[in-house]
Amino acid sequence: MSIVWMNGAFIDRSEAKVDIEDRGYQFGDGIYEVIRVYNGQLFTANEHLERLLGSGDKLSIQIGYSVEEFKGLLEQLIEKNNLETGIVYMQVTRGVNSRNHAFPAEDTPPTYIAYTKEVARPTEQLDNGVTAITVEDIRWSRCDIKSLNLLGNVIAKQKATEADCYESIQYRDLTVTEGSSSNIWIIKDNAVKTHEANQFILNGITRQKIIELCQGNDIEVVEAAFTIEDLIDADEVFLSSTTAEVMPIISINNVPVGSGEIGPVARKLQQLFQDAIERECNQLA
Amino acid sequence: MSIVWMNGAFIDRSEAKVDIEDRGYQFGDGIYEVIRVYNGQLFTANEHLERLLGSGDKLSIQIGYSVEEFKGLLEQLIEKNNLETGIVYMQVTRGVNSRNHAFPAEDTPPTYIAYTKEVARPTEQLDNGVTAITVEDIRWSRCDIKSLNLLGNVIAKQKATEADCYESIQYRDLTVTEGSSSNIWIIKDNAVKTHEANQFILNGITRQKIIELCQGNDIEVVEAAFTIEDLIDADEVFLSSTTAEVMPIISINNVPVGSGEIGPVARKLQQLFQDAIERECNQLA
Repeated sequence: MSIVWMNGAFIDRSEAKVDIEDRGYQFGDGIYEVIRVYNGQLFTANEHLERLLGSGDKLSIQIGYSVEEFKGLLEQLIEKNNLETGIVYMQVTRGVNSRNHAFPAEDTPPTYIAYTKEVARPTEQLDNGVTAITVEDIRWSRCDIKSLNLLGNVIAKQKATEADCYESIQYRDLTVTEGSSSNIWIIKDNAVKTHEANQFILNGITRQKIIELCQGNDIEVVEAAFTIEDLIDADEVFLSSTTAEVMPIISINNVPVGSGEIGPVARKLQQLFQDAIERECNQLA
Repeated sequence: MSIVWMNGAFIDRSEAKVDIEDRGYQFGDGIYEVIRVYNGQLFTANEHLERLLGSGDKLSIQIGYSVEEFKGLLEQLIEKNNLETGIVYMQVTRGVNSRNHAFPAEDTPPTYIAYTKEVARPTEQLDNGVTAITVEDIRWSRCDIKSLNLLGNVIAKQKATEADCYESIQYRDLTVTEGSSSNIWIIKDNAVKTHEANQFILNGITRQKIIELCQGNDIEVVEAAFTIEDLIDADEVFLSSTTAEVMPIISINNVPVGSGEIGPVARKLQQLFQDAIERECNQLA
């Protein structure tokens, strides 16, 4: 039986239940993070936890833990569950209150949960690439908040699944925004481009790490919106996410990307990203 | 202790808890209804329950009960809780599954809950009217689905609360859409107007009842979008919802609506609506 951290205590997974009037359950009124664990160690935990606190600020959810405190708790959780390779999922909602759209009293405690899951690195997909479709972005205009209002993302991912693809690439007014649970990147003439970090995308931690790696390794990188046409016309396309790392996309809507082979820039970034993991979490198997 | 209906059983409120991996809790992946109860009897229950099944269809949530079955269960719930005047809240999510954006296996049972709450008719506010502010509509483009992705609505309502107002009137590109939990109506030269029922608003059951009452009582009614300018320029404005019925708005952004008094059309519709309640649920106190 796995162990869950909930509202300050480590409990059995089977006891991890929330009240039906938790605002997370009735309004999706909460925020979350998914943090990668390699070799039993958290990867980019500070960045994820700072973003969690930032999401809380944007929604006025008062989070009663610091980054350092959360990190210590998550390290205990990983140890209790003997997790080697996987993820920590953590979520904070605005707490339990008699249902009412407006916020409850300020002293209402948030509901906190964190649990671990074994998730292997997707090595075969990283080697061979994945496929995608394009779908309209029907989400709200605060996609910069990592909130529990994920129905638009759910619908987009389900469409990909039904099309036997790995991911849906969303577009809003013909501008590519992001995947259903990833950021989207194109490469043209060796320059890397991804949507700027504004209210229409989530500023992925993996995205930020890739930008840093580009800048540190003489790879031209531009944060700017691009169109569906630019996507179709790209030499290489890849997606990035906490669990998928730097994942090449080799076909979109059944049309091969570029040559149909994984390109040199994506391969280079995969290697740089793996190096970054190994610097923080030791050598990967 | 009140009684909750959950997944086929009547249980104590204190036992009504859901798993942390319920898709309602992690994605807002579910739908709901709020049904009015007057004199211990459901009002417009068929319409609400048909809409619930319709929301399920739109999201491919397989609901295992018919309108008649749900209605029978809700009647039992009302009786067990001795509810006279209040609401039934009911919710259906896509069930519990190891977290993954895409839908779980088709045989995953939804999570059903229904509970009652005492809610008086807002008679003083119905007599005196309420105040509102205008806010930008930041929600997704499937507001026709009564889903649990309600953060945009929550933020809008909270803004109203912080402005000491009853409701926020949302606008998208200068077109008035709806309130945070209500439909919005204007009256100009005795003609009643409300946003057409498309993907940008929820087609309220109270809204539909009011349209029917207008049509049956020689009141001109138009379902068409109107602008913020039309709103400011209206003779009368009111909102409608399950709990608020026909609620006059007497000021918007601190500016009086029309003469600042509740107008004759709103008063007439309040009376017609009360008559409709009494036809279905007996005389109101």
